[in-house]
Amino acid sequence: MINIAVMGYGTVGSGVVEVIRTNGSLINERVQDEIYVKYVLDLRDFPGDPVEEILTHDFDTILNDPEVAIVVETMGGIEPAYTFVKKCLEAGKSVATSNKALVAKHGAELLEIAREREINFMFEASVGGGIPIIRALNSSLTADRIDEVIGILNGTTNYMMTKMFFEGADYAEVLKEAQDKGYAERNPEADVEGHDACRKIAILTSLISGQHVDFEKIHTEGITKITTEDMKYAKKLNMAIKLLASSKRVGDTFSVLVAPMLLSEEHPLCNVNDVFNAVFVRGNMLGDAMFYGSGAGKLPTASAVVADVVDAAKHLHRNVVTRWDAGELELIPNAEAEHRFFVRVQGRSEAQKEQIREAFGSVEIVETEGLEDEFGFITEVMTEGTYSKKAEAFPEIIHMIRLAD
Amino acid sequence: MINIAVMGYGTVGSGVVEVIRTNGSLINERVQDEIYVKYVLDLRDFPGDPVEEILTHDFDTILNDPEVAIVVETMGGIEPAYTFVKKCLEAGKSVATSNKALVAKHGAELLEIAREREINFMFEASVGGGIPIIRALNSSLTADRIDEVIGILNGTTNYMMTKMFFEGADYAEVLKEAQDKGYAERNPEADVEGHDACRKIAILTSLISGQHVDFEKIHTEGITKITTEDMKYAKKLNMAIKLLASSKRVGDTFSVLVAPMLLSEEHPLCNVNDVFNAVFVRGNMLGDAMFYGSGAGKLPTASAVVADVVDAAKHLHRNVVTRWDAGELELIPNAEAEHRFFVRVQGRSEAQKEQIREAFGSVEIVETEGLEDEFGFITEVMTEGTYSKKAEAFPEIIHMIRLAD
Repeated sequence: MINIAVMGYGTVGSGVVEVIRTNGSLINERVQDEIYVKYVLDLRDFPGDPVEEILTHDFDTILNDPEVAIVVETMGGIEPAYTFVKKCLEAGKSVATSNKALVAKHGAELLEIAREREINFMFEASVGGGIPIIRALNSSLTADRIDEVIGILNGTTNYMMTKMFFEGADYAEVLKEAQDKGYAERNPEADVEGHDACRKIAILTSLISGQHVDFEKIHTEGITKITTEDMKYAKKLNMAIKLLASSKRVGDTFSVLVAPMLLSEEHPLCNVNDVFNAVFVRGNMLGDAMFYGSGAGKLPTASAVVADVVDAAKHLHRNVVTRWDAGELELIPNAEAEHRFFVRVQGRSEAQKEQIREAFGSVEIVETEGLEDEFGFITEVMTEGTYSKKAEAFPEIIHMIRLAD
Repeated sequence: MINIAVMGYGTVGSGVVEVIRTNGSLINERVQDEIYVKYVLDLRDFPGDPVEEILTHDFDTILNDPEVAIVVETMGGIEPAYTFVKKCLEAGKSVATSNKALVAKHGAELLEIAREREINFMFEASVGGGIPIIRALNSSLTADRIDEVIGILNGTTNYMMTKMFFEGADYAEVLKEAQDKGYAERNPEADVEGHDACRKIAILTSLISGQHVDFEKIHTEGITKITTEDMKYAKKLNMAIKLLASSKRVGDTFSVLVAPMLLSEEHPLCNVNDVFNAVFVRGNMLGDAMFYGSGAGKLPTASAVVADVVDAAKHLHRNVVTRWDAGELELIPNAEAEHRFFVRVQGRSEAQKEQIREAFGSVEIVETEGLEDEFGFITEVMTEGTYSKKAEAFPEIIHMIRLAD
């Protein structure tokens, strides 16, 4: 029997208990041992809930019980999750977590402790919910140098972008709808400003580079400025607008960005709609691959956590090597990152277009029905710095959206 | 140092050598040891090729060298691959293979030998080329009961279906084009008749059920009867026609089918075009997921083989449990499998439609421009047996295509 403890009995934590209860016999067959939930830690009481008998309010009960071999952390946030997880690992207990904030900030340190103790720190559910992207990068695509990862990593914003695109609904309207359906929080900032996606691409980039990526250094823009007018241009261009988290190899480092971007309809990510997430990966041998699924939700996320528990149980005293060193990866500065830019301009005179061409060189002009007092143009590939400098001379620019290649 | 041998220096085998040469230092870092190709086995000579010095024509050289820990089998076909692989495993060498025919037929036996010897028999590249679907099922989706797997598992036929759909080209034309581009063999039977996809879905079903599936018992239809007229109806229905290999849980067993099917444009597989492959998976906790990538090709397939070599190297004397017992799974007989059927009928009289309604019950009539002397109808869900019996009374039926749900 392998005893586990679940810290945090919220959405994901209760899902973990449910997955183990529902699929227990299958899971035990795979582990070739019995997984038993010995404790659930939460500050709250759950009168009448089946976990009532195994509920504890005291973390030390778990920490000091030598029978607990694997701890699930689904509390979220940095503290007390960080302190608890660190103590568990130091006590020789493997940990599986769904906590992206914790992993993005302390992943390298926690992996190092696990490595020293010959146990495991696993975090499949921290990126892409039920999509097994972490294990794909760590254990499947091991023959490749990964040159590019582009993800739709936030279900809330993808739902909103999909609604805006297909139904012409405006931002405020779809945000309210997403909130009413429970897809978006009352305070939606973490999703709509891109902070959630930022932590996730930081984790993925740390894994493919093997070095620590500081998420605070990733240029991050949310979707709050995207309008129904932008969607009209996207349709005209046979593109979609998606909040993308992108990481591209440039020499020995990476150019990382979170921003709403125009994506060609031929790109496999373009058809990823509603609350679904997907991660596109390009390997130097493998070519293009994509992993698609539910990026959030109680059971899909819990399924990923329990898959980590299974893996940890199969490797109880054996570290599954994950390359993610504490040394910080120096990212390409945003000003040096290269893109094509789609730019909307107030007005529609030939003189303006001529000035645009003089400043930006060869551009593709885009005009769309129903927007008669403006036009758009698409630049050639240039750096963010070059774009910004040229754009300064045009106060009539409404705004800019980058193109994903 | 971990010595490996590559048996078969054709497309995939030479790709394996190339992947190891190109990404050697990365791969060695992941293995935490050095992977060294000690032998390449082939009947042919390769004067001037870098492998010339390590080339052998004699299998016994590999078998009898105790230094060879892992053997790659990329010869294809059942014999002598089966004999060689079995001898290698019995001699305590792990094997990684891309050979779907071998795995579909002898997978259970070869896994059992590997399990007894505490080594590994791995076959990621046998299904979906570079798509890491085998490892996803074995190591990632371990918290789920997998209820459904639907794959586009053959790149040649997907290329042909895509061309026929988007360009209105006819079957003979696209087959010739596929042959000219090297996507289809001069004798295309294995691809176009569905035999290749059949072996792959047999392997996937064996893995998700844990029991052996005899591929010869899977009802298999190819794409040879699909016409440009069918594609017109598909467009009218906002669907695509794809050669699907599908496996659905029914009670304790599975209903498995390989056939061209109509797929709604909302389905994630619908946008998988050209030579790309994809596998859609539905888990009872995870919900829907999809894995997409290059299903064939030298380097993507070799990448998957080398990922197996890495995994085998990390588990040199430790069996990675794969559930696939020798006991045969009794599949649902095809006559009992349930679908909706799209049926094309010669003629277009109201009397005919009335007779169709009388025989088939509630149906959806489909008519499309340019095909004035016929119509189509879509049935409710019914068994294959029921459909066939009803269809007997209508000699004017042109043909039938199943709908994927």
